[in-house]
Amino acid sequence: MNTVVIIGHQRPGSFNHAIAAAAVEELQSLGHEVVFHDLYAEKFDPILPHEEVRPDFELDSVLRRHCDEVLAADGLVVVHPNWWGMPPAMLKGWIDRVFRQGTVYSFTAAGVTSKLAGKRALVLTTSNTPREDELRLYGDPLENLWKNCIFGLLGVDDFARRNFESIILSTPEQRAAWLEEVRHLVRERFPR
Amino acid sequence: MNTVVIIGHQRPGSFNHAIAAAAVEELQSLGHEVVFHDLYAEKFDPILPHEEVRPDFELDSVLRRHCDEVLAADGLVVVHPNWWGMPPAMLKGWIDRVFRQGTVYSFTAAGVTSKLAGKRALVLTTSNTPREDELRLYGDPLENLWKNCIFGLLGVDDFARRNFESIILSTPEQRAAWLEEVRHLVRERFPR
Repeated sequence: MNTVVIIGHQRPGSFNHAIAAAAVEELQSLGHEVVFHDLYAEKFDPILPHEEVRPDFELDSVLRRHCDEVLAADGLVVVHPNWWGMPPAMLKGWIDRVFRQGTVYSFTAAGVTSKLAGKRALVLTTSNTPREDELRLYGDPLENLWKNCIFGLLGVDDFARRNFESIILSTPEQRAAWLEEVRHLVRERFPR
Repeated sequence: MNTVVIIGHQRPGSFNHAIAAAAVEELQSLGHEVVFHDLYAEKFDPILPHEEVRPDFELDSVLRRHCDEVLAADGLVVVHPNWWGMPPAMLKGWIDRVFRQGTVYSFTAAGVTSKLAGKRALVLTTSNTPREDELRLYGDPLENLWKNCIFGLLGVDDFARRNFESIILSTPEQRAAWLEEVRHLVRERFPR
């Protein structure tokens, strides 16, 4: 199985990085090919310039590679913190640029045609707001964004997400248990 | 009244730019001070680096100015298209960096203390998805994000938003009427 793991977090050594590392390690131990991108470390450019909107625009080599990778992948894993109910701008820009109309999906008379349809996705997010407050105040927007607005539109219906909270209040034991859960989720979603 | 108008759209001459221009013109004709930022044109850097998370970090002059402006403003107007149920990465990064913990708001034992509390906001967005489909498939995530996740947390309860759709299907007459509506909304929200 070809898999792509993307992390959008600004600090090497963060718990997000530990989650991504556990996912990569588990995918590899299951025999899957893994392409891994730490968008901050790679200084990915999140800004979609106007010219790039054109479906026939000649993509730069970095973006071309990201597009080819998601097209070739059977599974996608995305890791990021909850910033204002959304991914950090770095990862938002990866979405804006890589999930390109004309390359990854198209609008046709019949609706959306997506080259990602049928792939599997796992989104692992972190936050500090306690679960009950998150649901009461904000309704867990990341679930809707990833499940419906992004992967729903792209036909990636085989979708799961787990949010880990509250990171700031968590103990080392809690974090270790969460990383075990990451491995378990990866095994479940992307079996050998 | 001090006002700040922010636009996050990649193409000069876009309908988003026409909306922002109408808002700026109307605010000025009402006698308000207007600070206007076209984030793309100004090449705003949307990436929050790790060091900048620290509340006592010495901000660069551009970011310092943006923070000072929103702190000094009585009213905020934000204009952007709906990309994946969210603002473009450029504007997401403005939110990530400008609405800084320690500068704009703080977490205290009593909850969130925000220096933006009591200000007024108007968010003007555009999309191509027909309204019924947007509500049925996605639940209009931008309303929740701006109203609750961003301005709700920041104590900006005097909030209004208008989404204009479908841009791609609209006629010149429809767009002209929408720009009139923008002027009306601005007069209503930010009276002389």
